[in-house]
Amino acid sequence: MRMSLSVEELPLAWLRDNCPCPRCRDPRNGQKLFQITELPVDLALGAVRRTADGVEVDWAPDGHRSAYSARWLTANRPDAGEGSGDRRDETGKTLWAAADLDGGLPEADWAEYLGDPVTKARVLESVLGLGFALLREVPCREGQVLEVAETFGYVRETNYGRLFDVRVEPDPNNLAFTGARITPHTDNPYRDPVPTLQLLHCLSNAAVGGDSGLVDGFKAAALLRAEDPEAFAVLTRTSVPFRFSDARTVLAADRPLIDVDGRGRIREVRFNNRSISTLRLPADELDAFYRAYRTFAEITLRPELQLDFRLSPGDCLIFDNVRLLHARTAFEESGARHLQGAYADIDALAGALAVLRRQRALAGEEFLDGVAELFEDEGAGAYLGEAVTMAQHMLQAAARAEEAGAPGALVAAALLHDIGHFQGPVSGEELMAGTDNRHSHTGADRLVDWFGPEVTEPIRLHLCAVEPEYFGRLSEASAYTLKVQGGPMSLAEVAGYEANPYAADGVAVRRWDDEGKDPEASAPDFAHFRPSLAALLRTA
Amino acid sequence: MRMSLSVEELPLAWLRDNCPCPRCRDPRNGQKLFQITELPVDLALGAVRRTADGVEVDWAPDGHRSAYSARWLTANRPDAGEGSGDRRDETGKTLWAAADLDGGLPEADWAEYLGDPVTKARVLESVLGLGFALLREVPCREGQVLEVAETFGYVRETNYGRLFDVRVEPDPNNLAFTGARITPHTDNPYRDPVPTLQLLHCLSNAAVGGDSGLVDGFKAAALLRAEDPEAFAVLTRTSVPFRFSDARTVLAADRPLIDVDGRGRIREVRFNNRSISTLRLPADELDAFYRAYRTFAEITLRPELQLDFRLSPGDCLIFDNVRLLHARTAFEESGARHLQGAYADIDALAGALAVLRRQRALAGEEFLDGVAELFEDEGAGAYLGEAVTMAQHMLQAAARAEEAGAPGALVAAALLHDIGHFQGPVSGEELMAGTDNRHSHTGADRLVDWFGPEVTEPIRLHLCAVEPEYFGRLSEASAYTLKVQGGPMSLAEVAGYEANPYAADGVAVRRWDDEGKDPEASAPDFAHFRPSLAALLRTA
Repeated sequence: MRMSLSVEELPLAWLRDNCPCPRCRDPRNGQKLFQITELPVDLALGAVRRTADGVEVDWAPDGHRSAYSARWLTANRPDAGEGSGDRRDETGKTLWAAADLDGGLPEADWAEYLGDPVTKARVLESVLGLGFALLREVPCREGQVLEVAETFGYVRETNYGRLFDVRVEPDPNNLAFTGARITPHTDNPYRDPVPTLQLLHCLSNAAVGGDSGLVDGFKAAALLRAEDPEAFAVLTRTSVPFRFSDARTVLAADRPLIDVDGRGRIREVRFNNRSISTLRLPADELDAFYRAYRTFAEITLRPELQLDFRLSPGDCLIFDNVRLLHARTAFEESGARHLQGAYADIDALAGALAVLRRQRALAGEEFLDGVAELFEDEGAGAYLGEAVTMAQHMLQAAARAEEAGAPGALVAAALLHDIGHFQGPVSGEELMAGTDNRHSHTGADRLVDWFGPEVTEPIRLHLCAVEPEYFGRLSEASAYTLKVQGGPMSLAEVAGYEANPYAADGVAVRRWDDEGKDPEASAPDFAHFRPSLAALLRTA
Repeated sequence: MRMSLSVEELPLAWLRDNCPCPRCRDPRNGQKLFQITELPVDLALGAVRRTADGVEVDWAPDGHRSAYSARWLTANRPDAGEGSGDRRDETGKTLWAAADLDGGLPEADWAEYLGDPVTKARVLESVLGLGFALLREVPCREGQVLEVAETFGYVRETNYGRLFDVRVEPDPNNLAFTGARITPHTDNPYRDPVPTLQLLHCLSNAAVGGDSGLVDGFKAAALLRAEDPEAFAVLTRTSVPFRFSDARTVLAADRPLIDVDGRGRIREVRFNNRSISTLRLPADELDAFYRAYRTFAEITLRPELQLDFRLSPGDCLIFDNVRLLHARTAFEESGARHLQGAYADIDALAGALAVLRRQRALAGEEFLDGVAELFEDEGAGAYLGEAVTMAQHMLQAAARAEEAGAPGALVAAALLHDIGHFQGPVSGEELMAGTDNRHSHTGADRLVDWFGPEVTEPIRLHLCAVEPEYFGRLSEASAYTLKVQGGPMSLAEVAGYEANPYAADGVAVRRWDDEGKDPEASAPDFAHFRPSLAALLRTA
């Protein structure tokens, strides 16, 4: 909180420009309500008061009053370095070579992507961070690619239409529409603004050949900078005339192959040998450009950079068209290969991800609020004939886990192991009367949206303890309910259980479960456990 | 043609990369068919031969053969300076202050814009060169703004929709949707790519206030560079965090207020005080930024830079959103003011203009081909009882005009003065039989698509000569046809005629007309006049 006490050291215009009061910022939309020119030229700090929450400033000479929270001052202290920014330059990316993705492509099933915000966020994050993601099992129907784009943004219509068909055409206006091999390139460099995202949805790919490749253009540019800094500099400052022309269209953009921001960080790559038109520069600059261009081209063609894969029907590739170069091998023009493509923009995708995360964070808080409420309300009720309430029982189990030094996930499993009893379709009394509500599974199923298997699996398994002496150690009520729930496992069931990687954790939870029924024992309340639960939530 | 003889001095990789042969460039679409890496590393010139058209090169060591026309070599010689480029940086623009537009706004009627390619080209050229144009009498119906955008490009859909309504809203997520004054700004700087064009179509503007203003942001940036180069440099290298956030949207872009290309030329301006978020930089950089930002803001607010006008229902403003700042005065929220806006992109607009010009140039050639054919075919026919053919007559008239030192337009008028006789609905014989085909007007009406009034008006007027002795000097046939065509003018007609600024030119054409009936006189053929006719064509 140092900064909250030293506003005197902060740049005055910056501090005043960030005044959060409702006269300075519209409370409805956060937009600034004054011009920078409206601030006094001789702006100065008047009285500065510490408050409970931060600091309050009276400005001279105009007497305006601003209040800054300690939290805001700390988060935005100028010496803390730049913020996370828009994640468009290389510092917001994970640069890769093919081997870095040996663990598998960033991919997800279409249905899961649509249904699970965490999966969707993971896909969008891959496009932002790695430059691409692959959706599988996307319905193979024409026009579907537009629906994919609309799940995170807006289609960028061009002279090729809202979508374009990539297949062999009788009178192609672009090599893409032939069976020719196409080396790694970005699309549409002759457009400005260039579409920052491309989608390619595979409807059929029965041709011999036609495999896909991706190269991280930021990685290639970073290699060029490391290996040949002068060539890198030439490519960042030389505007290349990209041109496209057919019967109905003429497009032109003069842009560098590697675009850097004001601090020299790689921000965009355009690379397309097919559409570079005639550069007109002094001869020595042309020589320097061609040397640099060739060196960069050689790097983009290094086999270790290119990730090779094959699109199957139903696959939809989404990739960053100002970063990743895409390629395809030649294919037989007689073979059936049909992709549908569309362009979109990455700012909207990043925005969709931010909204998803904001919604998910809110939903996570709401989820934990709901759990806290269950502990307070329903949890205060009787626990199936035991001498403790359900809440006491679960809190005791968690406390025992904590005392045993269990990792956070296992403490959480102990804390939540009986959550299936709450608000279930069958009450505890009904369970005791012999109607199983499969409480352990119900609990885990509810939790699976929010916790990984390290929390949910021990809960799912905690009923099936298999230690030899286990059945004999149960309390009377537990022994009864275990019988109702199916009784001790058969030998075959035991074998399957022990093969489960969470079997030991399940046994541990069952022990803490059994230990958590002591009317004399003490345990922390739910608020004690909440922060570690929050840290375990599956965020978007 | 110097360059065609000295290919040895040209950068080799550049020359080879521009080989126009069908193995190097796809004849169907002009795309390059090889990678730069496929050229021999030890590329060298082998035999170089001069040809009728230019030069032919045998390349070593691979034996590839390239032919370059002298025309291409001259047009692209490296020392000729950069080409016209994509016209996106300041060198492709006409920078302006308000007084520079005292002659009137760049505007056109919607119907004329749709119907006349030259008018449409003028409007698109204004958007490219000045940064804006105004269409008048655009139908006042909702959604029309999208149709306007689609006449030159593609709508850029955003979170605001394909179009957005600018009017007072009960729960606005943007100040635009209130009655507040809005100072000069560009839209959506928190987007990247930012929409490069904006359209605003006025459906009603009955409110008190709500006037519009435009400021040339390139002009303001150029002034900053001239007056405070250090401030200019700070703004070009500082990424500003632009942010927008409402209930459904989060958008972020870190971009400089003034973006320059690799040669330091102004290329884009983003300026919007409302959406600048908190900069996080070292304190001294923050101080420098705020000084520069304030200085730039002060320039944008100079009254002499701001062009003020008022949108009326039916007006549609199209402007460059990475160059022009737009503003509006406050208005009474109770008043009826309703604009519909849309975003689009300027690359497609520039492309539409290029296509229009290409089409127009082709059509112009076709028009002149058609005229040449008329002179050859129909023109060889009898000329109303005169001793010369129609073609001879018109060529003689033009020759007399040329001998008299008449300007090109008047020579063209003399050459084409009887073109209405050709292919008219009434033949020369019918005219002599007393059926007027109003030949001078028919001719001018045909020509008006292609020539300005300095050509068409003298033609239109050439029948109505008013010199006192004029009627007496006519050949017998001319005297007869003039009678058929209405006879010498009444006094009132004479008064109107003499007020016409082209009256003297009309008299001159009539004299050359009368002089062009000499079977013994010689005259150049149509090909002699064609280049000067081509130079007079109204191009797009």
